Amino acid sequence: MILQPVRNIAEICARKGVQNVVLSPGSRCAPLTISFARHPKLHVKTVSDERAAAFIALGMALTTGKPTVLICTSGTAALNYAPAVAEAYFQQVPLLILTADRPTEWIDQLDGQTIRQQDIYGKHIKQSYTFPSDFEHPDSTWYSERMVSEALNEAVAFPAGPVHINVPLREPFYPAPGEEISFSQHIKIIEEDQTLSELSSGQIAKLKQELAGYKKILIVAGQDAADNDLISALQRITAETGAVVVGDIISNIQQLPEVIRYQDALLSNPDEQQLAQLQPDLLLTFGKSIISKSLKLYLRKYKPAAHWHIQPAGYVADTFQALTKIIRCTPAGFFANLSGSILADKAFTNTWKQQENKAAHFLKSYLAGTTYSELTLVARIFKQLPASSSLHLANSMAVRYANMVGLEAEQNVQVFANRGTSGIDGSTSTAVGCALTSKGITTLLTGDMAFFYDRNGLWHNYLPANLRIVILNNHAGGIFRLIDGPKQQPELEPYFETYQALDASNTARDFGMKYTQVYTLEELENALPAFFSPENGAAILEIFTESPANATSFTDYKTALRNHLSTI
Amino acid sequence: MILQPVRNIAEICARKGVQNVVLSPGSRCAPLTISFARHPKLHVKTVSDERAAAFIALGMALTTGKPTVLICTSGTAALNYAPAVAEAYFQQVPLLILTADRPTEWIDQLDGQTIRQQDIYGKHIKQSYTFPSDFEHPDSTWYSERMVSEALNEAVAFPAGPVHINVPLREPFYPAPGEEISFSQHIKIIEEDQTLSELSSGQIAKLKQELAGYKKILIVAGQDAADNDLISALQRITAETGAVVVGDIISNIQQLPEVIRYQDALLSNPDEQQLAQLQPDLLLTFGKSIISKSLKLYLRKYKPAAHWHIQPAGYVADTFQALTKIIRCTPAGFFANLSGSILADKAFTNTWKQQENKAAHFLKSYLAGTTYSELTLVARIFKQLPASSSLHLANSMAVRYANMVGLEAEQNVQVFANRGTSGIDGSTSTAVGCALTSKGITTLLTGDMAFFYDRNGLWHNYLPANLRIVILNNHAGGIFRLIDGPKQQPELEPYFETYQALDASNTARDFGMKYTQVYTLEELENALPAFFSPENGAAILEIFTESPANATSFTDYKTALRNHLSTI
Repeated sequence: MILQPVRNIAEICARKGVQNVVLSPGSRCAPLTISFARHPKLHVKTVSDERAAAFIALGMALTTGKPTVLICTSGTAALNYAPAVAEAYFQQVPLLILTADRPTEWIDQLDGQTIRQQDIYGKHIKQSYTFPSDFEHPDSTWYSERMVSEALNEAVAFPAGPVHINVPLREPFYPAPGEEISFSQHIKIIEEDQTLSELSSGQIAKLKQELAGYKKILIVAGQDAADNDLISALQRITAETGAVVVGDIISNIQQLPEVIRYQDALLSNPDEQQLAQLQPDLLLTFGKSIISKSLKLYLRKYKPAAHWHIQPAGYVADTFQALTKIIRCTPAGFFANLSGSILADKAFTNTWKQQENKAAHFLKSYLAGTTYSELTLVARIFKQLPASSSLHLANSMAVRYANMVGLEAEQNVQVFANRGTSGIDGSTSTAVGCALTSKGITTLLTGDMAFFYDRNGLWHNYLPANLRIVILNNHAGGIFRLIDGPKQQPELEPYFETYQALDASNTARDFGMKYTQVYTLEELENALPAFFSPENGAAILEIFTESPANATSFTDYKTALRNHLSTI
Repeated sequence: MILQPVRNIAEICARKGVQNVVLSPGSRCAPLTISFARHPKLHVKTVSDERAAAFIALGMALTTGKPTVLICTSGTAALNYAPAVAEAYFQQVPLLILTADRPTEWIDQLDGQTIRQQDIYGKHIKQSYTFPSDFEHPDSTWYSERMVSEALNEAVAFPAGPVHINVPLREPFYPAPGEEISFSQHIKIIEEDQTLSELSSGQIAKLKQELAGYKKILIVAGQDAADNDLISALQRITAETGAVVVGDIISNIQQLPEVIRYQDALLSNPDEQQLAQLQPDLLLTFGKSIISKSLKLYLRKYKPAAHWHIQPAGYVADTFQALTKIIRCTPAGFFANLSGSILADKAFTNTWKQQENKAAHFLKSYLAGTTYSELTLVARIFKQLPASSSLHLANSMAVRYANMVGLEAEQNVQVFANRGTSGIDGSTSTAVGCALTSKGITTLLTGDMAFFYDRNGLWHNYLPANLRIVILNNHAGGIFRLIDGPKQQPELEPYFETYQALDASNTARDFGMKYTQVYTLEELENALPAFFSPENGAAILEIFTESPANATSFTDYKTALRNHLSTI
């Protein structure tokens, strides 16, 4: 027998807009499995490795904007969700996690798959709840229904994030013979109209007045989903006022033609005089994290007189150690209301544009060259990315190379990357989750370490035909040879890079994916059209490079870039 | 520059007996990496997937009895340790976890690989510490040295378990050119003589008196490492008094010839009259968990008048809902002191022996048969297990089959299984850790779900030549077809069993392991001698069965067993 309040979790989820459910098999969670699997409006997929399952759920929530439900059995299953839960927390992605548990009195009694699940996600969860296990008193039903509504409301309230309901369940876990699983029609739902605070006219007037005191205004966008209203507002500002807008590849504002997209290159200029001319007096920021280390170091050194961060709610980071004001509204609303008042210093604007052009000019000619290195390979791939497709960038070097190369505005590519925690642990799974909930091609750009770490992202029965995986395989954590410090140590190869012998040929065979190996730029150019063709089906393109050669090319690139920037 | 107190963590670990270190590469943890890698007395291995790394460390600690040190970088790396940390907590295995972190002021500032690491293991850790990040005041050095000693003392204090030191580190992470990494010779170490409480003569006299009031005495051993003193004490008792000792395969007392090892079979007897004759008036238990569900259900139903649990320290589970007394001493000490006083009821002893013989007789003839099922396959494998080798049992069906089949006393096989949390998430890695720290053959018996879940346990450069992996591949979570409940549901195949297509041939190719496929009993018999030969090197033996056929055989076996038990 499955208790009605347990079945009704599925019903409340469906009524509140949940569509996707990822479950990992187990016996204790059977009442949840059966309730969700039999619900006519919910799509349930089974993924056995809970770590991968949770990242797949994250990918689904990223593309749909709706909470994905995760269901697992009791025990360490819940702990395997933890990396993705932390990523969802910091990347602000809504998830509803339902973990089956034993009733409280059976905790610590040496039964199998029993751990201490209450509050198991610690400080990386928006809210934790414990479902009632007994329903003799009618208040328990009221409480259970209220709880599911509250949890889903909390998951999507800005800033969105993961919520957890621990569900203690008693046997029997299965319906009796002939028992029908129905869902209550008269059920309590609490709707919440999610609205974000907007500036009052008084606040707008005051901010306009303050803004008038600044002339060198720099706008920096952090990671966020693509937002057409925001791009329109930013486009108006740049056109009206010449304000400078900087956006990493993960900010999803590279669709704005005027955006500064080569900041990572241009700010590595060694000429301090030129750098000083780029210093803003007012810095306006919004969104989450920034990839470019040059940009972070630059703004921490050349601090603006004032730094305003625009964010409707939630804690605010002082990323540049310069924060002076927090403005509680949406970035699109802020810029729409205040655009006319931002009158930038022409010289400041022009210097940024000149430096951007100088960097762009160098990069374009460098990347069109025939050096066989990861950076040039990424540039070639980006040139052939299908228009309006999705791109998932794995952590470590993939996302950094991608940010150096940048995307053109007209490519209209949506970019995802797990920069909430910047782990390599779930990039493949997240890309799979995105692909499963998108129509167009979803390309994952990854390295060999990230790919094999999360190989179980492909271990299920739902391989999406629109998935394309590009692996930059240098048989090691090549990043350690590119950064100062480890590359000078005797421990470089055994304890930092950590040679790994695998290529993906056997993995492709395991999961029935098309597979191509690439060793030259010509092979890459030849392979890409078929690889990206919509008819191709799920495919892996594996590009082999040598870690020491990459390091040499990268150093040469940086030296040439610095010379170019400082000598003109 | 690497601060002296950070380097000295390695020195204190070495002086306090740590030998093995498993690290996962990262930049933030470089000061720890370099300090441990350069320490002449420590063996450092690199494993990239932190989930696997932590289970490998657990395996090492299981065989050596000493804490393994785990080192990872900041961010979700630490969360990927969590499943193994929970397993270590409940299985009581000592680990010292060192997680690199950013200094407190940089938490939540949108920098990469930064989460909230303090107290990250919640309720599944014996103790959590935060390493100082500044050493201007000399008390900080005293504190840091004291902390490492305290943590290691706590890790091994009964009940042993994992401890965590979060280590916030500031840049630079690497030694300056020419900087030598030395370790302080005059350093504070706090030794702790670990002793366990033993009964006073007054307590012994009192317990002897109480014991005299019971005649039907049943001794049940939970999971524990092999303990020769305990086995000798139990051997004396059974010889002197005829007390009944029951031990699952994971209790490591199956080396005791007189142990009841077929309890799972004999207690599935449907004849209530026969069962009632087995009811003890006093139940004596020690150790951790028990696999046999029949035994648990039996004792919860046929409750003893008194249940004494013998455990030197720590919380005690009331596994059978019958606990009446906790005795704080070692089991070996308890039985050595009190053996003479246990005078069992002869009829009670004989009934247990008769039932055991009946079950043994049935099992031996059944398992010698030619039915091709997972149960008979396991029996054939066990017959050829190398003497005095190690056996690691993966969770789900592998450990259950193994417990049904049992081991003979003279085989002298040490048995390991992750029954602290009973997850399938780390069985392969744990077996690898055991193999890396053992001389003899280490055999892992696993299913396809557990094997592919933890495939990354093989993804490193230390494949042990003494590792043998036997995979029972039925292409699904076959357990769900064997237990009542899911097998009657329409969701059985898609949402419980979850068909998975992989076999291990590509995995064997990836990791350079010898690989044999088996489809018949004859093939198995022929393959085993070469497979277990010490010269064979790391190898996988994959045995294919069909899940529905297994289920049919299993039902037939159970029916035949019940008939046999109840009809004689």
